[in-house]
Amino acid sequence: MRSDLRPFFAPAGVALIGASDNPSKLSHGILKNMISYGYQGAVYPVNPKAKSILGLTCYPDIRQVPDPVDLAVIIIPAPAVPEALEACGERGVHAAIIISGGFKEVGPEGAALEKICLEIARKHHMRLIGPNCVGTLNLYTGLNTTFIQGVPARGGISFVSQSGAVGGGVIDYLRNKGVGFAAFASLGNEADITETDVIEYLATDPDTRVIAAYVESIRDGQRFLRIAREVTRQKPIILLKAGRTEAGARAVSSHTGSLAGANEAYRAAFIQSGVIEANTVAELFEIATALDTQPLPQGPRIAIVTNAGGPAALASDSLASHGLKLATLVEDTRQALRTHLNPAAQVDNPIDMLGGAEPHDYAFALNQALQDPNVDATLTILVPQALVDPAEVARQIAQVAQSAAKPVLTCFMGEHSVGQAREILRRAGIPMYTFPESAGYVLGAMQRYAKWHQRTWVEPTRPEGCQPEKVAAILSQFASRRVLGEAESRLVLDAYGVSLIPGALARNAEEAVEAAERLGFPVVMKVVSPQILHKSDVGGIRLNLKSPGEVREAFSEMMTRLQSLLPHADLEGVLIEAMAPAGHEVIIGMRRDPNFGPVMMFGLGGIYVELFRDVAFRVAPLTHDDALEMIFETRAGRLLSGFRNQPTADLEAILDAILRLSHLALDFPEIQEAEINPLLVRPKGGGAVALDCRILLENGM
Amino acid sequence: MRSDLRPFFAPAGVALIGASDNPSKLSHGILKNMISYGYQGAVYPVNPKAKSILGLTCYPDIRQVPDPVDLAVIIIPAPAVPEALEACGERGVHAAIIISGGFKEVGPEGAALEKICLEIARKHHMRLIGPNCVGTLNLYTGLNTTFIQGVPARGGISFVSQSGAVGGGVIDYLRNKGVGFAAFASLGNEADITETDVIEYLATDPDTRVIAAYVESIRDGQRFLRIAREVTRQKPIILLKAGRTEAGARAVSSHTGSLAGANEAYRAAFIQSGVIEANTVAELFEIATALDTQPLPQGPRIAIVTNAGGPAALASDSLASHGLKLATLVEDTRQALRTHLNPAAQVDNPIDMLGGAEPHDYAFALNQALQDPNVDATLTILVPQALVDPAEVARQIAQVAQSAAKPVLTCFMGEHSVGQAREILRRAGIPMYTFPESAGYVLGAMQRYAKWHQRTWVEPTRPEGCQPEKVAAILSQFASRRVLGEAESRLVLDAYGVSLIPGALARNAEEAVEAAERLGFPVVMKVVSPQILHKSDVGGIRLNLKSPGEVREAFSEMMTRLQSLLPHADLEGVLIEAMAPAGHEVIIGMRRDPNFGPVMMFGLGGIYVELFRDVAFRVAPLTHDDALEMIFETRAGRLLSGFRNQPTADLEAILDAILRLSHLALDFPEIQEAEINPLLVRPKGGGAVALDCRILLENGM
Repeated sequence: MRSDLRPFFAPAGVALIGASDNPSKLSHGILKNMISYGYQGAVYPVNPKAKSILGLTCYPDIRQVPDPVDLAVIIIPAPAVPEALEACGERGVHAAIIISGGFKEVGPEGAALEKICLEIARKHHMRLIGPNCVGTLNLYTGLNTTFIQGVPARGGISFVSQSGAVGGGVIDYLRNKGVGFAAFASLGNEADITETDVIEYLATDPDTRVIAAYVESIRDGQRFLRIAREVTRQKPIILLKAGRTEAGARAVSSHTGSLAGANEAYRAAFIQSGVIEANTVAELFEIATALDTQPLPQGPRIAIVTNAGGPAALASDSLASHGLKLATLVEDTRQALRTHLNPAAQVDNPIDMLGGAEPHDYAFALNQALQDPNVDATLTILVPQALVDPAEVARQIAQVAQSAAKPVLTCFMGEHSVGQAREILRRAGIPMYTFPESAGYVLGAMQRYAKWHQRTWVEPTRPEGCQPEKVAAILSQFASRRVLGEAESRLVLDAYGVSLIPGALARNAEEAVEAAERLGFPVVMKVVSPQILHKSDVGGIRLNLKSPGEVREAFSEMMTRLQSLLPHADLEGVLIEAMAPAGHEVIIGMRRDPNFGPVMMFGLGGIYVELFRDVAFRVAPLTHDDALEMIFETRAGRLLSGFRNQPTADLEAILDAILRLSHLALDFPEIQEAEINPLLVRPKGGGAVALDCRILLENGM
Repeated sequence: MRSDLRPFFAPAGVALIGASDNPSKLSHGILKNMISYGYQGAVYPVNPKAKSILGLTCYPDIRQVPDPVDLAVIIIPAPAVPEALEACGERGVHAAIIISGGFKEVGPEGAALEKICLEIARKHHMRLIGPNCVGTLNLYTGLNTTFIQGVPARGGISFVSQSGAVGGGVIDYLRNKGVGFAAFASLGNEADITETDVIEYLATDPDTRVIAAYVESIRDGQRFLRIAREVTRQKPIILLKAGRTEAGARAVSSHTGSLAGANEAYRAAFIQSGVIEANTVAELFEIATALDTQPLPQGPRIAIVTNAGGPAALASDSLASHGLKLATLVEDTRQALRTHLNPAAQVDNPIDMLGGAEPHDYAFALNQALQDPNVDATLTILVPQALVDPAEVARQIAQVAQSAAKPVLTCFMGEHSVGQAREILRRAGIPMYTFPESAGYVLGAMQRYAKWHQRTWVEPTRPEGCQPEKVAAILSQFASRRVLGEAESRLVLDAYGVSLIPGALARNAEEAVEAAERLGFPVVMKVVSPQILHKSDVGGIRLNLKSPGEVREAFSEMMTRLQSLLPHADLEGVLIEAMAPAGHEVIIGMRRDPNFGPVMMFGLGGIYVELFRDVAFRVAPLTHDDALEMIFETRAGRLLSGFRNQPTADLEAILDAILRLSHLALDFPEIQEAEINPLLVRPKGGGAVALDCRILLENGM
């Protein structure tokens, strides 16, 4: 699909524009890396001032470079880059990595230069990585266009980083750590190729089993959502997002010059696309490695095999706080353990074989745990004991794990005594942690991904009865307005099939009485005026009007009072509405995120929305399941589904309103915000109706 | 204060009972450790079967061991331990560490043996560590009674562990990690000496600057609370609690044979005593090391000095999520940075010197940050760059840090390129992290402890007007009851000065009318019956009775209906109460924890208590500040202090009720649970009154 990115990882030949024979230059380091890791393609240094570098013929210009060459790596001063790109284009090179800095990240002048580079690339149908990046790495083709010293081991993880520094630091750290890479790409300013492009490409790369990413900002959130949802059906994506707090976002924003999107949109998009979010760099690679080396667990039930209780308790805490359970072993397993192990051993889970446990005890207990039908995954813990050889325990675990169809994770607590064991487990592809707490987030992530992977695939669908032409006509009527009040918003929502409390606009007392008689008493009266947004604050709402007389009197009182209170307000009339039946009040909202588009919100209405922040978010378009999950992410979801003998609310009616509002937002980009507050929800089968609503448009201001 | 524990860490002479000359025995390893780390006192192996071991004269019996000997380390089969202890007592040895297992942890028989050991020790005024433990370590006296291979570096951290395995694993890990120990104690089954005893002793130990603890269970919670509050005024205590989840507690409970207390009580006690809780083993020692090596920050404002934006963003996220802020640098600092650094560098915080930053740039920027009056602590980040020497950066940082009065923490991201730098920083006593996220929890913990350390010291005080004799008399009246309903509970609470909604007991309709007339109409009527606990469930509450007629009618209706509905209930009459004024409903409760005693709860009343679990806990006795903090730990606290234009509630009245209920619980251990639900709180100055209440006693069942 994105086969045009192949030259960045597996080119037939690569030219290094700006290659230097001075070993203290980064460009020299790159050239050295290019020829040091087994890359079989052609490597051409380009530099008019040198004849040969590192034994390779040096070319004065890319135009002189012979075939094959399908990737140019450029590391020359920023102002010279456009010319070099032009030359690449003319030479027919369709992929370029610009390592050089001095572009968007340094200010408006650099941004202009970056734009020129992009235009040249587009003209020549050339794809760009960078500028201001660290390059790419492919452990299978041996390509290394970075100046990072050393490479990680070969494996199934491909790592995409929006920060070259994070990429470099990680690679420096991961060498010999048992974390295996397939490919790496540092994307810099993302003038052309973005994280989403590379993720899409890696999905098709047979060497990549797991995609890991460090991300500061996602510019095209809708595309990311679409692509990530597709990719995670095939391989896991684990992502570390910087700028999750305001302070972090500030640090990112000054770094990349791009506006970090609101945290809620990112969080929602990751949930909806099955992307696993890591909290730290360490987590990112621990989760990725477990997914790379181990099968997926088929459920949340974990067995712990240990030679000490304390670390098992810490592991149990960590498992429980990540949604996992200690498996209840079947009686056969317990019987076998009882027969074989030290009589004082604990044969319940955690299986505590006590300090004297020998390597063969580990092998036996782990094997039993793996064969237990109640166990979905295992964690084996060893604390160094004076008389037991950790290396032999590691060998036995590796032996048992060979034929296991369930995850085998280990924690060998310590360092000095377990170095050899670590090496044995590393070679066997078995994750080993120093402290037991890692098991929780690793297995939690594996289990969440396994569930995602198993779920039935449904595309978001469009609710029936949406009438975009009608909305377009209404909106054009209010082209100069910034805010649509309830009366106008009702027209818009009605055109998309959202249920509204029955009501009618009345411009005078007689129309109000007529409307009330049509709706049936008692009724509610609300002022309609473009200048009055907070109707209740000015006494613009009257409840429970029981007769024509009361309606007439309320109308004249309200008009007289508001005219004197707000002499400049256009009082267009009143809305007459039926009194709301009993039910739960919830809030449904939409905010348009600059990166992700419409972000939907659901929460409990009233003062508690703000007090408890009991709200959840999803990016539109939502599937039916997305909307349901959003509701159940809140405590309000529990309240609505029969908490403490309350009747179950009509969840389907809430879903319907959410989906309709989301499609309204998708169809009309000029709608910046929309809110139904409250949406009154009746018990199951009774529906839900909007009692008040408001829409913000981008025009006006 | 606990100078009787000194022999466990600094004995004049130590005897090893059960010393073996067989190198494959643990006891041989212990003897080797005793003589390998510079311990200057006498070491006496005791074993009737050997003449000498490892060149030391071996004694057949402790009674033959010459002076000086004030510590016995016992590692012989469990059944032989009592006799050995007797001998120690007779020999005048007043401190013994029982390494041997086979006691409480293996079942009732072992528990009986353990009890015998304790009795022998008590008889001889002997203190015991263990049994089933790993022993003690003192890096300053060189004493090592463990069989753990190797010891950590010397420093200011003393580590107390209820798990020998966790202790051993940690020591195995920490060697050469830049974490410095003063002492270590593994406590095993805690037959005699507990974690609290050792913490109390370590407070007086001049070599101990920081106390770290791994804890599974605290048996005497009240004593822990008292001691820990005292100790944390002098030195920090950082604690890792296992069994924080139900699964974790299960693992602990099967391990130590002791009942893990409810998590809420632990959490509350740690907050109230200024104990810093760590979430993982790694956190425990990262926090302890920073507190050991660095000064306390005077506030939450952190400056970041970095050569890359991505890691700074991750650090900023982590700082923000631990309550810290990025410092706003003063203009002088920014000016100096602007003049000195690369013109493209960012001179706002994070100070991003970009990839080319040289060692002298680091020195300059860090120095500027430390001198900035807006900065309370610093984090310096380095990502390996091809052309910069991390070791030289480390040297410069170490140089600047020497004269710093503010914390200097570092993150050198990577491993291969930063090994030498790590060693330089380790020797300089500067914490260095591999990934930027550690900074958040470390600085967060330092800042919390600094605040605790600075706060004015107040002892819990007893509210005036508590009448224990009166309560004793009331409780003796209900000696056979398990539950006291509202009518009886009102009497108890009233005797401790808790404000109640005005009300009176009435046994018949006439008394009810009289009471109503005295209180003033309208009134509330509630049935009084020991068999009816949920009054409203059976229609036992009538609101808003407006006249003598309505009261009379309601009384006869309620009695008739309840007699036929619940023929076996004793209907003692009704409570007539004034109608409640408007206000917020909160809940105040007390549950007696088996380890900690009375645990107080505060939360918002009504359905939201359960839905949002918006509750906080503190262990009695509480100070005024404890109670205030408890309220503000909940979202209800925000609601009560003027959220969204609500009037501020009478917080002092809530505090008063909490403190009175807590002293009631402290004075009467037979009260198992008590609850005021709701407590109606009026706006500030208006007081708070109990609208309903209930007390559970331990008697009856």
